[in-house]
Amino acid sequence: MTKNSKDLRSNCPINFAVETFGDKWTLLVLRDLMFKGKRHYSDFLASDEKISTNILADRLQKLDENGVITKSSDPDNASKFIYSLTEKGQALLPAMVEMTAWSASYDSLTNTPAEFLNAYKTNKDGLIEMFKSQFKHQ
Amino acid sequence: MTKNSKDLRSNCPINFAVETFGDKWTLLVLRDLMFKGKRHYSDFLASDEKISTNILADRLQKLDENGVITKSSDPDNASKFIYSLTEKGQALLPAMVEMTAWSASYDSLTNTPAEFLNAYKTNKDGLIEMFKSQFKHQ
Repeated sequence: MTKNSKDLRSNCPINFAVETFGDKWTLLVLRDLMFKGKRHYSDFLASDEKISTNILADRLQKLDENGVITKSSDPDNASKFIYSLTEKGQALLPAMVEMTAWSASYDSLTNTPAEFLNAYKTNKDGLIEMFKSQFKHQ
Repeated sequence: MTKNSKDLRSNCPINFAVETFGDKWTLLVLRDLMFKGKRHYSDFLASDEKISTNILADRLQKLDENGVITKSSDPDNASKFIYSLTEKGQALLPAMVEMTAWSASYDSLTNTPAEFLNAYKTNKDGLIEMFKSQFKHQ
């Protein structure tokens, strides 16, 4: 069941965003789904930031409850689940792209790919469309 | 002193964003500075989400340390401080606009102004420029 602002601290859209992903971990899981092609629990667990298993389970459950991701059985392995972005989750792409570009500008040690930054500066709409087309093939 | 990713969990740009504002409160303070014209401690404290004074003081200090805001004496009242977005803070505008539009799409009770959403759909670049021009007059 997707929450809306009647359950939240205010009806402000920035607060709605904060209530969905305002913590130290959720955006990293969304990043893994959106940009890294990760689909399985063990893949998220293996990311550089070393999320703990109990926090990961909690964040995946909340993202599912909030309608941002779905969880389904893996057709290739009945003992595993596949996590996917819903349309609501995919719609966070422009915000994620803007956050990435902002961080790349202000973190001298960023690992943001040069191709990303070049496409962001010269053809942002094209960059967004390229990522959207990847969603269709997942 | 501005942090960069050498102090952080990874060099990922999304992680850099999370380390800057990945919590339940920081984006609300940035919202107040960016969209609501709030400049004083007591103004942030009065926002709908009812931030506590110790959390507010902590988040303002972290934003200052991270180079996202500055704190200066209020020329109109020597006992007060004025908080302002730095260039780094102002550069979060496109990400904030995208988050706002996303929330407005998925929260049926959003209080996002209709003029904002109309401008977002028809002239996003113009909307961004309008907010940027407001920064210049602060």
